[in-house]
Amino acid sequence: MFGLCVAGAYAQTNDLTEQYRSAADRLIDAALADTEGYAKLTYLCDRIGKRLSGSQSLDQAVSWSVEQMKRDGLKNVAALPVKVSHWVRGRESAKIVAPLERPLRMLGLGMSVGTPAEGISAEVVVVSGIEQLAQLSREQVKGKIVLFNAVYKGYGPTVVNRTAGASRAAALGAVAVLVRSITPLAVQLPHTGALTYQEGVPRIPAAAITIEDALLIERLSQNGVPVKVHLEMAAHEEPDADSANVIGEIPGRELPQEVVVLGGHLDSWDVGQGAQDDGSGILASLEAVALIKKLGLQPRRTIRVVFWVNEENGGKGGEAYRQWVGDKLSNQVAAIEMDGGAERPLGFGFGNFGGRRGQTGAAPDADSMATLKQIGKLLERIGAGEITPGGGGSDIGPLTREGVPGLSPRTVAAHYFDWHHTEADTLDKVDLDDFRKNIAGLAVMSYVLADMPGRLR
Amino acid sequence: MFGLCVAGAYAQTNDLTEQYRSAADRLIDAALADTEGYAKLTYLCDRIGKRLSGSQSLDQAVSWSVEQMKRDGLKNVAALPVKVSHWVRGRESAKIVAPLERPLRMLGLGMSVGTPAEGISAEVVVVSGIEQLAQLSREQVKGKIVLFNAVYKGYGPTVVNRTAGASRAAALGAVAVLVRSITPLAVQLPHTGALTYQEGVPRIPAAAITIEDALLIERLSQNGVPVKVHLEMAAHEEPDADSANVIGEIPGRELPQEVVVLGGHLDSWDVGQGAQDDGSGILASLEAVALIKKLGLQPRRTIRVVFWVNEENGGKGGEAYRQWVGDKLSNQVAAIEMDGGAERPLGFGFGNFGGRRGQTGAAPDADSMATLKQIGKLLERIGAGEITPGGGGSDIGPLTREGVPGLSPRTVAAHYFDWHHTEADTLDKVDLDDFRKNIAGLAVMSYVLADMPGRLR
Repeated sequence: MFGLCVAGAYAQTNDLTEQYRSAADRLIDAALADTEGYAKLTYLCDRIGKRLSGSQSLDQAVSWSVEQMKRDGLKNVAALPVKVSHWVRGRESAKIVAPLERPLRMLGLGMSVGTPAEGISAEVVVVSGIEQLAQLSREQVKGKIVLFNAVYKGYGPTVVNRTAGASRAAALGAVAVLVRSITPLAVQLPHTGALTYQEGVPRIPAAAITIEDALLIERLSQNGVPVKVHLEMAAHEEPDADSANVIGEIPGRELPQEVVVLGGHLDSWDVGQGAQDDGSGILASLEAVALIKKLGLQPRRTIRVVFWVNEENGGKGGEAYRQWVGDKLSNQVAAIEMDGGAERPLGFGFGNFGGRRGQTGAAPDADSMATLKQIGKLLERIGAGEITPGGGGSDIGPLTREGVPGLSPRTVAAHYFDWHHTEADTLDKVDLDDFRKNIAGLAVMSYVLADMPGRLR
Repeated sequence: MFGLCVAGAYAQTNDLTEQYRSAADRLIDAALADTEGYAKLTYLCDRIGKRLSGSQSLDQAVSWSVEQMKRDGLKNVAALPVKVSHWVRGRESAKIVAPLERPLRMLGLGMSVGTPAEGISAEVVVVSGIEQLAQLSREQVKGKIVLFNAVYKGYGPTVVNRTAGASRAAALGAVAVLVRSITPLAVQLPHTGALTYQEGVPRIPAAAITIEDALLIERLSQNGVPVKVHLEMAAHEEPDADSANVIGEIPGRELPQEVVVLGGHLDSWDVGQGAQDDGSGILASLEAVALIKKLGLQPRRTIRVVFWVNEENGGKGGEAYRQWVGDKLSNQVAAIEMDGGAERPLGFGFGNFGGRRGQTGAAPDADSMATLKQIGKLLERIGAGEITPGGGGSDIGPLTREGVPGLSPRTVAAHYFDWHHTEADTLDKVDLDDFRKNIAGLAVMSYVLADMPGRLR
């Protein structure tokens, strides 16, 4: 009945909790004492560093990742080729030129086009967000630079100004876009991130500026005197580059064709060290699997760790993985993506973004939730056992949209968006003890999901 | 008995609290509704901006300050000439050049000498602070760049690495110094600030780097491979420049020769806007006095607002003010310096840095403390009435060292050192409501001190 037995069979009792207590405790103890995971993260951050798709350092990171997985004794280690977008920032700068001159601290948005070599100088129209822009007429926007000065109201609700702002403004005739950095913390730190151009609308350059500078422009604008900004960006796309998803496995002892997949993304933005985003995710995942291996725990099903590539500006790694799985999708028994940083973990979110097997927006399966809560109990001793609806991520999106049960670790998320996509996403932001707890959570969750008699649905 | 009556006469009763309740409430109400003070601060920050001693923008700030005091109806408005140090940052950069290449985010320390035009390249010796440096031999330090990687333990205990580090390292033969920024918050933001060279020791260049970069250098150093840094700084001093302390008064109605002086410093570092440090201090002080004037409260003694100059890198304004007072020091009945930012005020610190009338380190006078506590009660409704020992500041230091009773507002100080001496010290950091409460505190304190029958001692 293996592989057919549903989670519900375990919901009424705490079978799983009892059955896996000993293995879980060993994994947690090992994770809490682990030094290898953080050592790997240190190497990735300090020696390889930032690793945007198409960069040499990403190539280096791919080779290094293959080596690490082999050194940890994983099987079927491979770099699965993926063509990735190759966006290059180039030289860039911005300044206020009227009614006074002030430099602006900026970072062009990922995938933005550049300006002409001589730059763009234009008057700024300040809006509080895409909603307010929608109330403006073409006459009010045409030929202008639109500043989206949106107050941070959580990442999801605010980031739409960054992703969609350029095309919304261009549709009204704007020549460029500035976006207030998507963060709650004002410390003169610009936050980059990708935009998405809408088909059929002119592509205009777009850059993030700091909260401070966005507020300055807003204040100057309120005096009735036009504020003019000069923007220069050499950003451009080069032909797609060769890269790879890196995978490694502990083959299952009974059902090796069935796979619990876990991981994060190997690429990062071209600023900082990609420490929390997502060095912490890939290396907590790898270390979780390495510890399972080291403790001699060979699960019933295969556990596969995946370092997806090109998450930040293209999502090609997640798509390529889905294609590589091909018609064996039903063998993907669960997918866990860690891409929210390694702050203190609280538990896991569980859900199916896009709905299960075509049912969009379906609530998580109740029996599966009950099963996960039994597993969660094993993580209560480190405060990481809470199971809540809603989970997933962009790399496992192509799987979960087709019905693969998706999970993601949930943390306190106290500071993640202070550093996200900035020069400040560096190793020091990853606390060793929190990182270890994340390893523990991933190890216990992936091991039990891979070993338990039944499957989530 | 005016001017002779001591504070102790009021200590047993709450005479002052009762007597000044109505005036204090009017001042507080006016301050809490005030818009002029913040409008002035906005102008100073956005239109004049940063204003280092010797800069054109400081000249502009002096003229503007004179205008503001006149517009507020103050008397005896004057710009009292002061020769100020004229340090110029010039172009500067730093990078790790071995065992790998990484740019360093840096700000030369104020008053530092520059490097030769070709820069300085040398191996880095990392120490946890001046204490650890003292344990090193000349052989270990000679020809090296010393990095003071001191963990922030409050500003006072940590800043000594910035002020004294260069000469301590030079005495052991170091060729340059890097100082981890003096701040609790790691967000890739370098914090500048002045150093002091010791006489008789070679002057070597010194720069602040970010917490992140200091930690990176420390980690790289721990691998036994020498870390090498290249530093270029064009910093230099030009001949002292002409500047001024700006003063204005409400002349006392009975004892105009006796003066309560309050203010902060007009100059700032050459980064950010000098918003909290110390735009907030001077403009809260001015607005406090403007409101006293506007409400028609003419105190018994003179209230004088002073915008001292050159606090950040020379202290020439505070010294010049002391000289200008001359042999009339006993007429300075109290000095209030606000130079800790306008976060939510809690009360005032009271003390005599350097001791009273030659007695160094004396505890605050008990009768005066009792008097101040009566005044503090008037500020309880805004949570700003706590009177604690310890207060003063560097601009009033030349007064308090000779016995003038010194006070300084005390705030929650939750974030001041996150922004201090950085590009992030901008207007948005000053909360309007907190700023208004600071105005209220200064208005009530200075008015009662100037009007009450007795004096502090």
